[in-house]
Amino acid sequence: MARSPVAMEKLFSGDRVAVARAISIVENGESEARVLLRSLFPRTGRSYRIGITGPPGAGKSTITSRLAGHYRDRGLGVGIIAVDPTSPFSGGALLGDRVRMADVETDTGVFIRSMASRGSLGGLSRKAVEAADVLDAAGKDVILMETVGVGQSELDIAGAADTTVVVLVPESGDSIQAMKAGLMEIADFFVLNKADRAGAEQAVMSIQMILHFRENADWNPSVVKATASTGAGITEIASLIESHRAHLEKSGALALKRRERIARRIGDLVSETLRVDFWSPERRAMLAARMESVMQMANSPYDVAEELIGHFKSR
Amino acid sequence: MARSPVAMEKLFSGDRVAVARAISIVENGESEARVLLRSLFPRTGRSYRIGITGPPGAGKSTITSRLAGHYRDRGLGVGIIAVDPTSPFSGGALLGDRVRMADVETDTGVFIRSMASRGSLGGLSRKAVEAADVLDAAGKDVILMETVGVGQSELDIAGAADTTVVVLVPESGDSIQAMKAGLMEIADFFVLNKADRAGAEQAVMSIQMILHFRENADWNPSVVKATASTGAGITEIASLIESHRAHLEKSGALALKRRERIARRIGDLVSETLRVDFWSPERRAMLAARMESVMQMANSPYDVAEELIGHFKSR
Repeated sequence: MARSPVAMEKLFSGDRVAVARAISIVENGESEARVLLRSLFPRTGRSYRIGITGPPGAGKSTITSRLAGHYRDRGLGVGIIAVDPTSPFSGGALLGDRVRMADVETDTGVFIRSMASRGSLGGLSRKAVEAADVLDAAGKDVILMETVGVGQSELDIAGAADTTVVVLVPESGDSIQAMKAGLMEIADFFVLNKADRAGAEQAVMSIQMILHFRENADWNPSVVKATASTGAGITEIASLIESHRAHLEKSGALALKRRERIARRIGDLVSETLRVDFWSPERRAMLAARMESVMQMANSPYDVAEELIGHFKSR
Repeated sequence: MARSPVAMEKLFSGDRVAVARAISIVENGESEARVLLRSLFPRTGRSYRIGITGPPGAGKSTITSRLAGHYRDRGLGVGIIAVDPTSPFSGGALLGDRVRMADVETDTGVFIRSMASRGSLGGLSRKAVEAADVLDAAGKDVILMETVGVGQSELDIAGAADTTVVVLVPESGDSIQAMKAGLMEIADFFVLNKADRAGAEQAVMSIQMILHFRENADWNPSVVKATASTGAGITEIASLIESHRAHLEKSGALALKRRERIARRIGDLVSETLRVDFWSPERRAMLAARMESVMQMANSPYDVAEELIGHFKSR
């Protein structure tokens, strides 16, 4: 078996350099990443994974940052993965809009990693989950995964969390849009952030009304108000996360979630391996040779796909 | 060869019932959809495809609707595909927020189809492009594809357009967020909608400043102001689309875009076919049998994926 590209004992002890290097490998390299993830897999399954999602501008980063502080105050190790193009955690110092998360960034008990969401060809959600595995194996007790709640890959990441928190703001229509975007189905509870703004009460009522439409026998999502910029509501959010965790553990749903996550992972690995095997130089050349006849409508894309698959199977 | 499930002559003549049925088949059925798409492929490649994207609340639907009216006034056939969970075209009559697009909806020269973006497992962008092929084969001159510009699958849909229009509003930070979300790279030009609001001039300047960072030798995206609710700016938008089209045709970039789109389609067909072939009842059972040992950390997901692939290849 290939040797792991990272000193595993350092990684398991939470060494920042080893963790950073491991996540970079997950982001960049295919075969190296597999060797690494295979080595660390037996050490995963201990962290609690919390997804923080919602529309751009809802204050997800501030809540993530405050929650990290809350857990640090209790002596817990925290990892943060930000997969949100509009997050101040991500994106860097572009045009001076970067918000310094000073309290969190300088704390060595917190590891923050931003992952870019552009040009990723759909592989981002898998990589974010793999980065969470690295943090898990590095001994982080809590992993906060911040994603913008609109696209499918973001919903996939939320699906990888044990508890999913959807953050909304009082602006009109926000809750309706969230519902349409599928956020209502994935929310374990809601945070109405910026609750000091006008319209907060109506927004809470609107979310509660929508929640009545949702059928859920064993867990009923609620709405908690917060003003993350001042820290108001953070204790209540942490307490709701704790209740949800206790519920999942008691009902056996936590083990089931982890099982489904692993099954999905196996499916992704299979797809990725098949894709790489399939697109050999030989079949790439075959595709290039057929393109002209397709452009002239003499062949359809369906004919060419069938021919290539026939070639793959006949090897 | 299997018979097509839709009367093709009716579809090619633009018959609404045939078009609606064909798009439903694309949305729902795998093998039926392939038969249909293969039959209609030779009739595609004639429509001009325009992507309208941007953040929720930017007014994309109003612009789409106004542009449709503009093209109808010129006697052109128009198809609209809305893949935006927050669009009034999509989502239906939920809680009374549905905006009636009366002018457009009652016009038989316009065909509107909304496609749901939740629970689609990443297949949505492919289906939206296939629905565009149906409208193309049905003789629509212009196809407007409205998507919310945040997630990866939405960027994929925008990549399927000949001209991509990014709609923003004067709200602060909007242009920065758009840039981070990757919209700057895909925009052929920008519409600053709701330009009667405060901050419109600053927003235009901010977009123009960001555009200076973008390297583009042969086409320089510009910004046009609009107030779609009154129709102001629609003629300018249509005129910019026309300029961009002329540019693409002259430079040969239009043919190249179509070629890349078809190559991507072939890749998607291959992946989909391999996935279905792979997950036979036998290998599903193998996966189920291995899950227990993975949950107990005796095997890793990587071991199981390799074993399944070995089985697939040894057939």
